[in-house]
Amino acid sequence: MPEDHDRIDVAAQMRAIGAAAREAAGALSSAPAAQRAAALNAGADAIEARAADILAANARDMEAARAKGLSSAMLDRLMLDEGRVRAMAQGLRAVAAQDDPVGAVMAEWTRPSGLRIRRVRTPIGVVGVIYESRPNVTADAGALCLKSGNAAILRGGSESLHSSRAIHACLQQGLRAADLPEAAIQLVPTADRAAVGEMLRMTEFIDVIVPRGGKGLVGRVQQEARVPVFAHLEGICHVYADRAADPEKALAVILNAKTRRPGICGAAECLLLDRPFAQAHGARVLDALIRAGVELRGDEASRALDARVRPAAPDDYGREFLDMIMAVRVVEGVDEAIAHIARYGSQHTDCILTEDDEAAARFFSRLDSAILMRNASTQFADGGEFGMGAEIGIATGKLHARGPVGAEQLTTFKYLVEGDGTVRP
Amino acid sequence: MPEDHDRIDVAAQMRAIGAAAREAAGALSSAPAAQRAAALNAGADAIEARAADILAANARDMEAARAKGLSSAMLDRLMLDEGRVRAMAQGLRAVAAQDDPVGAVMAEWTRPSGLRIRRVRTPIGVVGVIYESRPNVTADAGALCLKSGNAAILRGGSESLHSSRAIHACLQQGLRAADLPEAAIQLVPTADRAAVGEMLRMTEFIDVIVPRGGKGLVGRVQQEARVPVFAHLEGICHVYADRAADPEKALAVILNAKTRRPGICGAAECLLLDRPFAQAHGARVLDALIRAGVELRGDEASRALDARVRPAAPDDYGREFLDMIMAVRVVEGVDEAIAHIARYGSQHTDCILTEDDEAAARFFSRLDSAILMRNASTQFADGGEFGMGAEIGIATGKLHARGPVGAEQLTTFKYLVEGDGTVRP
Repeated sequence: MPEDHDRIDVAAQMRAIGAAAREAAGALSSAPAAQRAAALNAGADAIEARAADILAANARDMEAARAKGLSSAMLDRLMLDEGRVRAMAQGLRAVAAQDDPVGAVMAEWTRPSGLRIRRVRTPIGVVGVIYESRPNVTADAGALCLKSGNAAILRGGSESLHSSRAIHACLQQGLRAADLPEAAIQLVPTADRAAVGEMLRMTEFIDVIVPRGGKGLVGRVQQEARVPVFAHLEGICHVYADRAADPEKALAVILNAKTRRPGICGAAECLLLDRPFAQAHGARVLDALIRAGVELRGDEASRALDARVRPAAPDDYGREFLDMIMAVRVVEGVDEAIAHIARYGSQHTDCILTEDDEAAARFFSRLDSAILMRNASTQFADGGEFGMGAEIGIATGKLHARGPVGAEQLTTFKYLVEGDGTVRP
Repeated sequence: MPEDHDRIDVAAQMRAIGAAAREAAGALSSAPAAQRAAALNAGADAIEARAADILAANARDMEAARAKGLSSAMLDRLMLDEGRVRAMAQGLRAVAAQDDPVGAVMAEWTRPSGLRIRRVRTPIGVVGVIYESRPNVTADAGALCLKSGNAAILRGGSESLHSSRAIHACLQQGLRAADLPEAAIQLVPTADRAAVGEMLRMTEFIDVIVPRGGKGLVGRVQQEARVPVFAHLEGICHVYADRAADPEKALAVILNAKTRRPGICGAAECLLLDRPFAQAHGARVLDALIRAGVELRGDEASRALDARVRPAAPDDYGREFLDMIMAVRVVEGVDEAIAHIARYGSQHTDCILTEDDEAAARFFSRLDSAILMRNASTQFADGGEFGMGAEIGIATGKLHARGPVGAEQLTTFKYLVEGDGTVRP
């Protein structure tokens, strides 16, 4: 890219990127599965062969980030080491090895008219991915888009631009090796924030936008986008321990749901205790959470179970802590739990702990979260754990893609209809 | 409704309708299939029992429409008679008798972690339908939304308001008879156009908008909507007669695709003739079209086949005539046909006439129209003809619903995950 890219008109630059992506999407849509997989494997080889270049580029990003005084959490997200580079290459190979979604026949039937109708998976077209500091998203998102036959326009954070460029160069090497157009995976070369605004409005060139990052980024994208968006704004996940919960299972799931990795979107943020469960087992559960290092904020009834529970502020319900903090509330049965979750949840992932099939069925039918769990940790809300191989994100919208968004969710379909000179009466 | 509804603040009124719809959607989401079907059958009974009321209301609409000097085509769309009323009732019963999509398990698998994952169909929530003069859309759209477990907000054209109210009263009678909330199917009571603007922005109350009507309406909706839209702006359907087409099949399909009903969105608007086919059979095909009353507008090569073909203006390609007019062009093989359709088509329905499997495969893979046909009339682009029982419209967007939108396409899904105290390592 020219060194003076900041002076180029961003809108024109983005439109050129969009037009190139649209053209590449046309070529990708009929590229065989083996060719796309070969590009991913060749990209993985390039990442391993050029690991030193990637680490050197990352060192430049880290130096600038430290000079800017970024937080240690931000620095950790930005940082690459040999292990992380190797994991990126392995991720590309894993995606390449998955079943190819493109061309799969989703349904097939014959009509009395004699028409044979097939509904067949096709790529969506062009996917825009807007992310923040994690440079590995360049590889993961590029790989899932290519696997699903889509052209990708990747726009990473300015902090990780050197790292992302080095990784992107490896993906392009893979594309060239497999004789696919380099524009199949493009990296926006400018750090100018206006580029994001352009992407959000380029309805003729981008079919769907996937934002990966914090609430600030996702909220802006959801607010401004004219292009459809696959995203979740927040993961305000609830765990409800029903009166018919098995106390041992409940304890294990609650601890895991909160503490395994408190900073991911599938981490539980609020614990709802059915009153009989609270009376019998609540003190033990709350003690275990506190001893694991969790700060609890609860209502009167839960504070009566353990004096170390702090009084909850009203906005502690419906809050995404992403930290070792959890809201607690005692409720009267599954219906009050459902009402609480309907009011405060974010339709991401919610869990019921119960041995009572009727209570579970009620919880499953009355709530419309993208993922509902029974007797299992909300931390399983992940494309890898669902068996999708990888995910580009988790969506909570109602249409098309919900829950983990893997290669299959990045496809759409068309109807292929065959007759024999068939006319409509 | 109060007679002074026009003076009520439209925004507040629409928000009240939206909130009521959202609440009704909650009740519908767990209403059993039999209860929703019972409401549709009782609504059909009410339409038959109150046919005289519906016809009287329609007479008022017709009188006002004639006084306003509406075109005869508009008057025909607006007009109800006993046969059309009976057809509406039959339509409700047919939708009631279809398989119920809600709760169907779309996929089911078990993970090494022990988790059992099911992907289950659920209603989308609240569907807004914006239509023009046809009063029967009130019944059809209301029925499909209820069948799929969604609450409906129906906004018909002002010309058909009395007719729509009478039909809507019957649907509400059906809802009451089945003990379902009346707000499950609401009719916007005001003719104020500001109501449409409110619907397009009510993202918290409406999950998807389906516009049914002309290009003016659909274009406005697509332009202004913040709510997702299922729609097609135009049906610019192409028929390509390949060199390997069977001439008898080709003739029958071309005539049917253009002339069966030239005013529907699946009618063919442009005929592409492969040069060898044109040389061997073009004159006969064009003569048959002209004798059937079709005005042809073509390029030099097609005019050489028949002197009655008028010269095509540049904008005759990519134009939706919705009339007995057809553009014609001679092309050099399937690739030029694909390029023409990619440039001028509207991704609705396009057809190849050929006995050559390779040409058909190329046409099917290179184009991404919602529906691609081989040796069959484009007029089959219809939910009923696809076996969906009924359709609320045809969509050309890339996400979620494409092609005919029936009850199944008005659903989304959620993941139901069951463990046994399962925690993530």
